[in-house]
Amino acid sequence: MNIAEPALLKRDETGIAKVTGILKQRFGERFHTGKSVREQHAHTTTYIPSQLPDGVVFPENGDEIQEIVRVCSEHEVPIIPFGIGSSLEGHVNAPGGGISVDMSQMNRILTVNAEDLDCVVEPGVTREQLNTYLRDTGLFFPIDPGANATLGGMAATRASGTTAVRYGTMKDNVMAVTAVMADGRHIKTGQRARKSSAGYDLTRLLVGSEGTLGIFTSLTLKLQGIPQAIAGGVCPFPSVDAACNAVIDTCQMGIPMARIELVNELGMQAMINYSKLEYDPSPCLFVEFHGSDEGVKEQSELFGEIAESHGGGPFKWTAQAEERAKLWKARHDSYWAVLTLRPGAQGITTDVCVPISRLAQCIAETEEDIRESGFIAPIIGHVGDGNFHVVVLMDLENPDEIKAAESFVARLNKRAVAMDGTCTGEHGIGQGKMKYLVDELGDSVDFMREIKRALDPKNILNPGKILPPK
Amino acid sequence: MNIAEPALLKRDETGIAKVTGILKQRFGERFHTGKSVREQHAHTTTYIPSQLPDGVVFPENGDEIQEIVRVCSEHEVPIIPFGIGSSLEGHVNAPGGGISVDMSQMNRILTVNAEDLDCVVEPGVTREQLNTYLRDTGLFFPIDPGANATLGGMAATRASGTTAVRYGTMKDNVMAVTAVMADGRHIKTGQRARKSSAGYDLTRLLVGSEGTLGIFTSLTLKLQGIPQAIAGGVCPFPSVDAACNAVIDTCQMGIPMARIELVNELGMQAMINYSKLEYDPSPCLFVEFHGSDEGVKEQSELFGEIAESHGGGPFKWTAQAEERAKLWKARHDSYWAVLTLRPGAQGITTDVCVPISRLAQCIAETEEDIRESGFIAPIIGHVGDGNFHVVVLMDLENPDEIKAAESFVARLNKRAVAMDGTCTGEHGIGQGKMKYLVDELGDSVDFMREIKRALDPKNILNPGKILPPK
Repeated sequence: MNIAEPALLKRDETGIAKVTGILKQRFGERFHTGKSVREQHAHTTTYIPSQLPDGVVFPENGDEIQEIVRVCSEHEVPIIPFGIGSSLEGHVNAPGGGISVDMSQMNRILTVNAEDLDCVVEPGVTREQLNTYLRDTGLFFPIDPGANATLGGMAATRASGTTAVRYGTMKDNVMAVTAVMADGRHIKTGQRARKSSAGYDLTRLLVGSEGTLGIFTSLTLKLQGIPQAIAGGVCPFPSVDAACNAVIDTCQMGIPMARIELVNELGMQAMINYSKLEYDPSPCLFVEFHGSDEGVKEQSELFGEIAESHGGGPFKWTAQAEERAKLWKARHDSYWAVLTLRPGAQGITTDVCVPISRLAQCIAETEEDIRESGFIAPIIGHVGDGNFHVVVLMDLENPDEIKAAESFVARLNKRAVAMDGTCTGEHGIGQGKMKYLVDELGDSVDFMREIKRALDPKNILNPGKILPPK
Repeated sequence: MNIAEPALLKRDETGIAKVTGILKQRFGERFHTGKSVREQHAHTTTYIPSQLPDGVVFPENGDEIQEIVRVCSEHEVPIIPFGIGSSLEGHVNAPGGGISVDMSQMNRILTVNAEDLDCVVEPGVTREQLNTYLRDTGLFFPIDPGANATLGGMAATRASGTTAVRYGTMKDNVMAVTAVMADGRHIKTGQRARKSSAGYDLTRLLVGSEGTLGIFTSLTLKLQGIPQAIAGGVCPFPSVDAACNAVIDTCQMGIPMARIELVNELGMQAMINYSKLEYDPSPCLFVEFHGSDEGVKEQSELFGEIAESHGGGPFKWTAQAEERAKLWKARHDSYWAVLTLRPGAQGITTDVCVPISRLAQCIAETEEDIRESGFIAPIIGHVGDGNFHVVVLMDLENPDEIKAAESFVARLNKRAVAMDGTCTGEHGIGQGKMKYLVDELGDSVDFMREIKRALDPKNILNPGKILPPK
């Protein structure tokens, strides 16, 4: 077995044959067993090899999801919910086979309640689709993980991204969900009140459960008013340490950053070349402020002063949409930019998150580790949260590189956990990070297992994810 | 049985006798069975009669809590965690007897990580104690439910209060907990990273679980930098409707309110008399902004314009600490002020929360209901969240009044749930709201029961709360 191959689960061939037969008859053209469709639904964006489902079904509403779950439950066949496939830790793999439930047909925006700053959407709606739809309302949905992920997938992995420092993560922005549970019951976890103390927080339990406890059929999401003004810019620093200290001071002064992104020296080199930015290749912060015209001006100036006191700057900021767009396009294109550092390689992204006081040290030790490992691997981070990504440029045909990358990721996770951090700030556990969960949370993982057993006693919902075998 | 009496649970006299014997021997002076101490630990702040525990123990650390839980688990005796007794729905009652675990000796502030804007505290620390301790650090803990509750109790009920519109509720401000579970294991639910996607969100599951799933032994809390400037004031409106519409516009413009509190006409009458405020008795908003000097000035002026456009004002605001303090003291004293409306009566407080678009209607119908019921019952609300309280002034010796109040509360909850709201925005379910939970969340309550069964199979942790008998 390849070191990166996650354990296969026992396949129940009889059950799978029965379920594929039933679903074929029931869903006709909306059920696929062809290899290319199955491959699309198990592609992974990691070095973990694909594990294909036995069929892919495209439901159009919650009742159909209920039907699918009931059939799979009766025959104890795995169900793997599928958004758009942008998850990074093998979440959509099918280690025991089973049925991939593709949410792309459940992509309706059901209601927008402008006065309440909320909306109800189906799980297959993507964040860009929602924001395009909202364009004329003066509202927007702030969470931006980079990829144009589905909102259901983002909720399932407790995603966040560049704006979490201001607007929180999916746990803070999903007010309630409806979901089909493993026994086929269709529940709602909350109403549209902004807050509630009514019983156990099933919303937050399902958010981040990666499809292992229930399958979302709708999400009630918080929206934000589009700020009157946005200002932002890029600020160079002599070191990652200086940049992190500037962020700490900015947080402590209560200056409300909307985004504050760190790119290390190697990342900047790539972005400067790729996006033709006029900066020197030193660690930089990409910063954005949301507020009134006066507010963002004041905040930008204050941030510039803080940066200067840490040897950074000049902080060139602008409230001009066009100039800002160019900078953030460069930041969003950073994945493509870093690929140019090793033509032909694939970029495998991992993430950890530590208390911000430990961030500079964690990044410094990680840069040293990268050098010693001989990887080309820039670091890009949501530094206001202490969260950073390493993009390891790899040849996935080379088993030695995969083995080395696995060891590197293991060391990275151990380092982050030892600094009171987490093995994943926003990507989730999936298959790739299962082995680090007990290190981080100890006996808590047993209670997660008890919850899984209680809510999905047949272990049919996305089995082989999150919870490591005992 | 009095209509307000919650069902007693079966008492296990043998087990209780054994446990009280063991705890007496183990904890000596720190274990009490005298009636007056037991009465203090079951006092309720509702019309629900007290149900006394059989003993009260004062542990000093997590190891002692583990010991207590193991003894109680072995003999299947209930354990009722006790903070300071300010909960409002009979949370600390002991319907099946058992042991009250008083957290007042676990009141140490363990660490303050100023750079990370977080701290770790024991559950018996009160919010005022924490903020006094933080005074010289430039940081504060923002959640303010009114009472000087313990932070453990606030986490247990998912409390919030006046500042939730800006800083969220306890769910947003507890980053992780350590807790003793029903089997005696001591777990941590997270590390100090600002965000994590590592597995099921046990933090959010325990926050709001009212001591029924685990007993907190420490809390990791987010802190905030004390804002450079604070401005605020009181703004009168011709109607509750106009005030609510002003709040909706303010939210939509993205003006960051730190507090926005509604007091209805009757509430203002009481407060004007009690606190000698120079206002006319019409519905008022108490508003506060946190930010820079320029920022709070701009926000106050903008809010004044919005208020005027809805027929409100003048909005007299100030950034002077002394003047603001007088207003917020009046708001915080509102409970005592409203008591003067019916001398000798007790004020029983209930809460619901609805989408803000429905708030004006919900309050109008509730005011009408109050008039028809003949109650004196002012309304005070955290209007930015759609959350409001009714303080019913009652003679608790009069069974007819209790019966009428129960009916009123039932209608209020039904009204809120029908408007897509919740039967409790911040007080929790306890005993008092159990009967409304299924109305609000349907089959979800069955899954809460499964979780309770999985994590506390002997039903020893605060039994008879949250989950209504089937």
